[in-house]
Amino acid sequence: MRYELYYWPEIQGRGEFVRLPLEDAGADYVDVARVKKTGMAAMMRFLESRIAKQPPFAPPFLKAGNLVIAQTANILLYLGPRLGLVPKNEAGRLWAHQLQLTIADWVAEVHDAHHPIGGGFYYEDQKREAKRRAADFTAERLPKFLGYFEDVLKRNPKGSKYVLGEAVSYVDLSIFQMIAGLRYAFPRTMAKLEPKHRRLVALHNRVSSRSRIAAYLASERRLPFNQQGIFRHYPELDR
Amino acid sequence: MRYELYYWPEIQGRGEFVRLPLEDAGADYVDVARVKKTGMAAMMRFLESRIAKQPPFAPPFLKAGNLVIAQTANILLYLGPRLGLVPKNEAGRLWAHQLQLTIADWVAEVHDAHHPIGGGFYYEDQKREAKRRAADFTAERLPKFLGYFEDVLKRNPKGSKYVLGEAVSYVDLSIFQMIAGLRYAFPRTMAKLEPKHRRLVALHNRVSSRSRIAAYLASERRLPFNQQGIFRHYPELDR
Repeated sequence: MRYELYYWPEIQGRGEFVRLPLEDAGADYVDVARVKKTGMAAMMRFLESRIAKQPPFAPPFLKAGNLVIAQTANILLYLGPRLGLVPKNEAGRLWAHQLQLTIADWVAEVHDAHHPIGGGFYYEDQKREAKRRAADFTAERLPKFLGYFEDVLKRNPKGSKYVLGEAVSYVDLSIFQMIAGLRYAFPRTMAKLEPKHRRLVALHNRVSSRSRIAAYLASERRLPFNQQGIFRHYPELDR
Repeated sequence: MRYELYYWPEIQGRGEFVRLPLEDAGADYVDVARVKKTGMAAMMRFLESRIAKQPPFAPPFLKAGNLVIAQTANILLYLGPRLGLVPKNEAGRLWAHQLQLTIADWVAEVHDAHHPIGGGFYYEDQKREAKRRAADFTAERLPKFLGYFEDVLKRNPKGSKYVLGEAVSYVDLSIFQMIAGLRYAFPRTMAKLEPKHRRLVALHNRVSSRSRIAAYLASERRLPFNQQGIFRHYPELDR
């Protein structure tokens, strides 16, 4: 099956957590909104449809045959077993999904560090509040999330190479993306925190050197981080 | 099977989205942290365990036999089919879960309306920022979420009685809780918005009059809304 991914064409954003497993599995997919001329209009038709029976609240969403699936973690719940990127048993899938939902919470907090008042305002119009929130994020929340996932790796009975058992899963790919994004957004803070989270850093490196991921990262399909996405670099928020 | 729910004993919070389906289905469960004398210690032992192989990041979590499942929407993903509160086919379950994840995003925004800087600070220490964020929440985000779910009800091909098909699901119970909580937190705003969202209001009433839910709401097991939970009433945030 050819999957159709719909996401904003100019940012990695939440769509990247779906692109990575599709790329790692070598799946047949099209990043619809990035198709020149027609792509963005196709996505907007979907979002603005007045007749769709199951409308998405927001991108990303995935079209898979007759199914239209939204919410990043839900898309991964669906794709995981089909791409061979999650354990087969229910307990393993629930644990993977639980971790992915915790990553979703983490992503929302990364976003809100630069937009604590609302997505409808420019950063410059909430910079004062962002400084306060980012200070709390870098001092309290970020160490808490990093510590949690480092601990999850440490407690894996099958070793600390991957989060679940002995094989790579979509959760590992998402953790790679978190570390990469946090390095872009908070380089000073991450330089301080990384030595305490060696398993996560090793996991980031392990994922980035997987052959299909390495090829993807070197391709034009991988958008660069920028100041419109979730991970943004404002030096004043990274003390 | 007797389910064990672990959640903070003094608030409805995210735990309430799990309590409601357990109550509606007449399931055998214990609200562990609310068991006098021993309950809170039992929950903290779990959270502070240094040997658990799959530690929860935060409550709520559910113990079901050998499984320990965290993240509210993940717990509902697991419980839904077992309690008969979700369609049996995969497409229906994914759609229900997608909606539940959108409700989870909504819940986070309700919380952040009074805590835009961080959960570690008192409300009084972020009141100025909260006023700004709550103004955006009540003017933009709340109408957007209400409008979305009203629309989902309207588009249900089987009628607007419930969100999915013709039968009640855990998503309907969660929408009841959202309306109830929003009325407590933002009575002025909701009085203005409710006439435009008649299907949601009717759904709230339909759920609250279900026999087991009505009995639960009248019991001591239903904690009152209060100023420690997700839904808090600060008149200055409800203009």
